[in-house]
Amino acid sequence: MDTASAPLVAPAARAASAADLTPLAIGATTLDATGELGAWQRLNREATIPHVVERLETSGVMDNLRRLVGESDADYRGFNFADSDLHKTLEAIAWEAARVPDDQPWEQFTRDAIALLNKVQEPNGYLYSHVQSGKFQGPWEDMRWGHELYVLGHLVQAAVARSRATGNDDLLEVARRFADLAVELFGPDCERPDGYGGHPEIETALVELYRHTGEKKYLDATVAMLERRGHGALGQGPFESVYHQDHLPVREAREAAGHAVRQLYLAAGIADVAAETDDAELADVLEDLWASAHGTKEYITGGMGSRHKDESFGDPFELPPDRSYAETCASISSLHWNWRMLLATGRAKHADAMERALYNGIASSTSLDGTRFLYSNPLQLRSDHDGSSEYQPSERLDWFACACCPPNLARLVASLGAYVATGTETDARLHLYAAGEVRLGATTLKVTTDYPWDGRITVEVSGPLESLALRVPAWSHDATLTVDGSTSAATADEDGYVRASVHDGSTVVLDLPMPAELMVPHPRVDAVRGTVAIQRGPVVHCIETVDAPEGVVLEDVRIDASEAPRVGPALEDIRAGATVIATGVVRPATHVPLGTSLRLTDVAAKDPDPVQFDLRAVPYARWANRGQGAMRVWIPVDEGR
Amino acid sequence: MDTASAPLVAPAARAASAADLTPLAIGATTLDATGELGAWQRLNREATIPHVVERLETSGVMDNLRRLVGESDADYRGFNFADSDLHKTLEAIAWEAARVPDDQPWEQFTRDAIALLNKVQEPNGYLYSHVQSGKFQGPWEDMRWGHELYVLGHLVQAAVARSRATGNDDLLEVARRFADLAVELFGPDCERPDGYGGHPEIETALVELYRHTGEKKYLDATVAMLERRGHGALGQGPFESVYHQDHLPVREAREAAGHAVRQLYLAAGIADVAAETDDAELADVLEDLWASAHGTKEYITGGMGSRHKDESFGDPFELPPDRSYAETCASISSLHWNWRMLLATGRAKHADAMERALYNGIASSTSLDGTRFLYSNPLQLRSDHDGSSEYQPSERLDWFACACCPPNLARLVASLGAYVATGTETDARLHLYAAGEVRLGATTLKVTTDYPWDGRITVEVSGPLESLALRVPAWSHDATLTVDGSTSAATADEDGYVRASVHDGSTVVLDLPMPAELMVPHPRVDAVRGTVAIQRGPVVHCIETVDAPEGVVLEDVRIDASEAPRVGPALEDIRAGATVIATGVVRPATHVPLGTSLRLTDVAAKDPDPVQFDLRAVPYARWANRGQGAMRVWIPVDEGR
Repeated sequence: MDTASAPLVAPAARAASAADLTPLAIGATTLDATGELGAWQRLNREATIPHVVERLETSGVMDNLRRLVGESDADYRGFNFADSDLHKTLEAIAWEAARVPDDQPWEQFTRDAIALLNKVQEPNGYLYSHVQSGKFQGPWEDMRWGHELYVLGHLVQAAVARSRATGNDDLLEVARRFADLAVELFGPDCERPDGYGGHPEIETALVELYRHTGEKKYLDATVAMLERRGHGALGQGPFESVYHQDHLPVREAREAAGHAVRQLYLAAGIADVAAETDDAELADVLEDLWASAHGTKEYITGGMGSRHKDESFGDPFELPPDRSYAETCASISSLHWNWRMLLATGRAKHADAMERALYNGIASSTSLDGTRFLYSNPLQLRSDHDGSSEYQPSERLDWFACACCPPNLARLVASLGAYVATGTETDARLHLYAAGEVRLGATTLKVTTDYPWDGRITVEVSGPLESLALRVPAWSHDATLTVDGSTSAATADEDGYVRASVHDGSTVVLDLPMPAELMVPHPRVDAVRGTVAIQRGPVVHCIETVDAPEGVVLEDVRIDASEAPRVGPALEDIRAGATVIATGVVRPATHVPLGTSLRLTDVAAKDPDPVQFDLRAVPYARWANRGQGAMRVWIPVDEGR
Repeated sequence: MDTASAPLVAPAARAASAADLTPLAIGATTLDATGELGAWQRLNREATIPHVVERLETSGVMDNLRRLVGESDADYRGFNFADSDLHKTLEAIAWEAARVPDDQPWEQFTRDAIALLNKVQEPNGYLYSHVQSGKFQGPWEDMRWGHELYVLGHLVQAAVARSRATGNDDLLEVARRFADLAVELFGPDCERPDGYGGHPEIETALVELYRHTGEKKYLDATVAMLERRGHGALGQGPFESVYHQDHLPVREAREAAGHAVRQLYLAAGIADVAAETDDAELADVLEDLWASAHGTKEYITGGMGSRHKDESFGDPFELPPDRSYAETCASISSLHWNWRMLLATGRAKHADAMERALYNGIASSTSLDGTRFLYSNPLQLRSDHDGSSEYQPSERLDWFACACCPPNLARLVASLGAYVATGTETDARLHLYAAGEVRLGATTLKVTTDYPWDGRITVEVSGPLESLALRVPAWSHDATLTVDGSTSAATADEDGYVRASVHDGSTVVLDLPMPAELMVPHPRVDAVRGTVAIQRGPVVHCIETVDAPEGVVLEDVRIDASEAPRVGPALEDIRAGATVIATGVVRPATHVPLGTSLRLTDVAAKDPDPVQFDLRAVPYARWANRGQGAMRVWIPVDEGR
């Protein structure tokens, strides 16, 4: 077991100039199930992973493989990348094996799956059931839409996870045979202009394989594929080149564009290559991509992808709340990318971005019981929304035709501990705040907190730690730091961290005041002009029909933005550690004439004495858990007085 | 030539309770080329139709047919409904033959095309080059996506138009052979649950064929296909049943839903059947559909279809300006539907809807020179829009992969005269105001007006006319009517018309004051909250980068809504008979921090003395004719003071 590495991270040598950004091994962190993230991990283990494993059977993923060795006569089912559902699940299981090594309920499933993969794998290493079914195109015939490299990427990530978590290289052997084939075909000597994948993913995977094995050919092949991309060699089908990030060479494509998940996986791959090759130009590309994505194309929930059409990014500031696509996998891949940016730059803004996505756009994707999911995560659902589907949900579904998200979620949640902290036994840094324990060599950090519901984080140090840096989130104001009883303002350095000098036995308390606050959209976000959103700490809130007065249509609800909202009580039935209460105003539209536009001079004077009520806002992540109804994050401001 | 009929209209017997809604023959109206609509007809004749005829060659439409009789070896090109491009063009040419009978430049083209169609047509009447190519599916195999009935519908409409316009039934014979086959297969005795078309269009066509020939089997087949629809028998492919209006039986589907053009063609077909069968329930369905479409899903430009995804209607009040799909064909089919509703009900609101679409969402689709087109008609284009395409235009294109719109436009514009008036030589009604002449038997109405740039309409009567009703548009206030020198308030009756008693030699002047007015969105239209639009008469305006002060980004422009805008001078270079000047305010976003959401309390105080300027707004229909730049219809209101 390689304790010096962690999932999907750059190794120490590559991790920024600051040596304290050494990533931790997956087993180095324990998140308490009493805390928000720890509880999520338990739910993931007890409900989500078993559900996903079951759906691998019912959705046909396992049969797609079995029929190739005569163990099933079912037709091929699902999209051509269906194998990746299995691979992501195996990765989730591997991280669980590292997290809870003394209880591995899916080891037999894993071994059976690996045995099956071994049987299905062709002598040259090829392993992609869609093509092997013989019903569609041949191997590597369709680099644009064929997902061989994408599926290989997930296989490699699962294999590295299993090797690191358990020391067992059985899956790694399978993955390397396939990876070696790909490297041979698409490495630096490849003469095919289209020798790269339509759906990025292989990039992060091969760099990780390089880190895990030390074999540089995997890195070289990744660089070759990256540089080959962007000259349009994939051609265009139903989608334009930008959909596949094939419209501009990687070094020139500086705006987040096209299919959001593809763009974000690609950005993560670029970050890995930039780190491993010390490529300053690529680092500069990443800064531009980040400014584009996070500065102009990110929802307040951390969601990305404004368009249903082509599942793509939109123009800058094109951020419709009702048609926000905000695929769960986009938020997950944004987190992956920001983790790499954090390691490379040491800047807290990347951890801020990770927690925004984590507590909002990612957390929203799962039901309270962990077995129903959102693929798209809209910021508004109207009262009379026309039905529900995978892509336009009014409720969570237990599986999808395109089932990329649930197993992606499972692998992320199982590995959450790895993102909490970095460092060494003398110099540590906390990025995400979660109750639990972080072990760095001889040092242990015991973290006590009810984050994100409360902003107090207490860290008890045991061991030789000398310096502890704590992230001061950009959302916080007036934070204080108490080190061994001495309190001062928690003034962040330019990277966004406050540093405490500590010793064995020290107690450090970071207090992040968490008032409920009104947020306004950037003036160029046309779609939510005249509205405010409610945020408390990293948690974005929403309002739902169930919390409006009886009979009130949610579209008629306004908010009195002249009054600061206040923190409300917890709401146990949706496991919200806190809620927010604002002043709501009912402005019925019933008096407005029929039609979508009205003469300004004809608009009736507003009711001078409208119904006011305590408007309860709940964490966005918990919406749609109390029956069907309307929801909105951005609430129209009452203009009535 | 059947002078008692007109394009796409119900015959006199069916035209509402009011006898004065008798539709006119196509040749009964002459629109002066000095007026807006007449000039458009001239442009259509001189530029658009020649362009379309040429593109039938270059896009492969003619070769698709020729190869079936050995006259071409080109591959099949275009969508499966490519034949309909030819049929719509033949219809446009036919209306031109009626409009300008002594100059028919396309008669030889028409005869050649009909000869070709005769040769291609199979002995049983089948005529659909996509299937006949033998490369795809067989006849009638795919009722969901195969467009046989759609293409037949356009063939029938072209044939009826040619028969009415020229008395020549050569095309009608071709169309009837194919129609008879369809009636035999899909008439009342058809036992196929999916015996109807995925893309409505056949309905209006067969009812028109019934009117033209008197053969009731065409009506009966239409009724049978309508009633069969909506039980999901078409099945689902990439699209759900609602896309094809197959989710609910026609009598139950009361919300405008699914693919917008399909929905609107279907609604027109329902209106034809309701009129011909005196079906009160269908009439009630139409009222509900209309309230849904026009009350909650119509753009201020008359555009419909809020979603790029599936080219579909959205939820009620889901009307994004930047992602408005608003396909040209949707506005055209809305006009067709409203014309039928007008004839059936006599209510001016339907003519209001027609003119809203005509002067805005339809007119916008064509360039000044008549040879470049918009498929989608957005209400906002950002400064940094990412490229231009058929579906996300930043400029007009000279043809489309899906070329339904240009020939649809050609046939509409050629037939515009038919929509201007209804009535008899003693009792007439004016619906659309255009300079020209309307002939009703022994009565002639000479109309002088600079509408829509000026609201004065003068009608000189010669002949035995006794009553003249004039539409008082819903947008107008304080209209006056002067009959033979005597002026009074033009008070509309409950249908929206003001009636004048007249005699031979009377002069009637309707004065519709046309101030420039600020419009606000219905409070449920979230996407344009906090903005106003400028409308003058029926003309919706927009602002463009080219009219902003040098260096000002259009997204930074606000409007001072406390001041009424004023009418501005004509702008000859875009053929705008008037413009509007409002007070613009520049509010640069440069001081706003990076990010898409900001803490309300962190937002900087606004510049108390911002740059103000005369903000010129131009007719929306004329946007994108002065170089590339941003555009918006809905302008953010300045909140700075």
